[in-house]
Amino acid sequence: MSKPLILVTNDDGITSPGIRSLIACAAEYGQPYVVAPDSPQSGQGHAITLTEPIRLKEVDIFKGITAYECSGTPADCVKLAKNVLLRDKTIDLCVSGINHGSNASINIIYSGTMSAAMEASIEGIPSIGFSMEDYSYKADLTGCVKYAKMIIASVLDGAMKENKLLNVNFPKIPPSEIKGIKICRQGKGNWQETFLENKDPRDQPYYWLAGEFKTIRHEKDSDLWALQNGYVSIVPSKHDLTNYKGLDELKFMENLFDA
Amino acid sequence: MSKPLILVTNDDGITSPGIRSLIACAAEYGQPYVVAPDSPQSGQGHAITLTEPIRLKEVDIFKGITAYECSGTPADCVKLAKNVLLRDKTIDLCVSGINHGSNASINIIYSGTMSAAMEASIEGIPSIGFSMEDYSYKADLTGCVKYAKMIIASVLDGAMKENKLLNVNFPKIPPSEIKGIKICRQGKGNWQETFLENKDPRDQPYYWLAGEFKTIRHEKDSDLWALQNGYVSIVPSKHDLTNYKGLDELKFMENLFDA
Repeated sequence: MSKPLILVTNDDGITSPGIRSLIACAAEYGQPYVVAPDSPQSGQGHAITLTEPIRLKEVDIFKGITAYECSGTPADCVKLAKNVLLRDKTIDLCVSGINHGSNASINIIYSGTMSAAMEASIEGIPSIGFSMEDYSYKADLTGCVKYAKMIIASVLDGAMKENKLLNVNFPKIPPSEIKGIKICRQGKGNWQETFLENKDPRDQPYYWLAGEFKTIRHEKDSDLWALQNGYVSIVPSKHDLTNYKGLDELKFMENLFDA
Repeated sequence: MSKPLILVTNDDGITSPGIRSLIACAAEYGQPYVVAPDSPQSGQGHAITLTEPIRLKEVDIFKGITAYECSGTPADCVKLAKNVLLRDKTIDLCVSGINHGSNASINIIYSGTMSAAMEASIEGIPSIGFSMEDYSYKADLTGCVKYAKMIIASVLDGAMKENKLLNVNFPKIPPSEIKGIKICRQGKGNWQETFLENKDPRDQPYYWLAGEFKTIRHEKDSDLWALQNGYVSIVPSKHDLTNYKGLDELKFMENLFDA
């Protein structure tokens, strides 16, 4: 039996330490195939490139593993892998990351890492995004790798039937202190934004997004709680954004006009 | 009593016909305040600008209405409006659009129009994204305007308690043929992608995203059904992406390690 084909991507770019670790995880259980951005794409959300051409270049930086760098967004990488590079193959799993920085809570919305994973799930491919709370490229990823391997093995083993997409985050603590895994819901948090306001060399004003993340509610079943308490968080996620609980209160609008 | 403050934005850019129509709708019930991209931003998803400064320029193109063009994404526009331009005010409503092109079904994920509206809803501001199935800048928006006004009036009147975010789409039919409003859930559809593959003037290959939208399931309570049948679709939407139905099947992962 041939090894499962595992598409590996990220949003920090193909040269980041995080994707190198994730390729190593994937290689234990399948055949990794890498298509990742040629430059950092943090905060790209689910952006796709419509108005200009995209470039793909094969690179030889991961020993014995086919890899392409792509000028597009993380979602573009997945679209190109599925519809061009691997169009005659079945992709068994897509993994994205390991992102340098948390994608817990509301960050799933802004995250290029998770948009790549979501794009794969929209295409029907089981998919996992991995992120580490530590932004540093020098962070110790050995704890992440240990858990990522186990999660990948479980998913390849058929653990997901109701699910197609997982948002996995690792706490910023020494690997030996990680307490285990928690299955969670998306925590309620938000960015309290500030903008750095300044003038450029030609005396024109500019604004630069800053701000810090705030937990709005500390709920024990949330990813935010799990991470704060030393656990790996896994949030099963989806792309149906309907607020089903909100359907009823709007029904009256159907009668606003006598059609 | 002062008029409600209505933030108006879009993703087609501040010079598009759609935002001009939406400003007119907002002006009937409140004080519009415009912050919109200085160039088209379609397909930007929930992208935000982290790695470079953003520019804002006040422009005088809507008679008597304060308006800024912004070099950032639609989500950036909302962040700047909330945290810089209007930081001392309460924004009563955010409206985004009218987008030239559908944002029904899975398009909510890729849509800059909806990302702006969602960003406002994350900030706690009631918010509505409006989109028209017709991509043409010459499309007749009079039908959209009639319904948009009624929806804006209802929301300002307090119609949303369970909801913070609406995804409104208008069918591509003559205004007189619109049958009314349907409250819907997000329909199941997908893009069947193809890439135009070609070589540039220096003989280097490039890829350009193409493809067409396919309805996966025709369900009568979906936005896709409503639009196909001549109705305005309204999908109440949210930014909690947790797949609650999928939580249980993953619980076993909590015991993968003896922690």
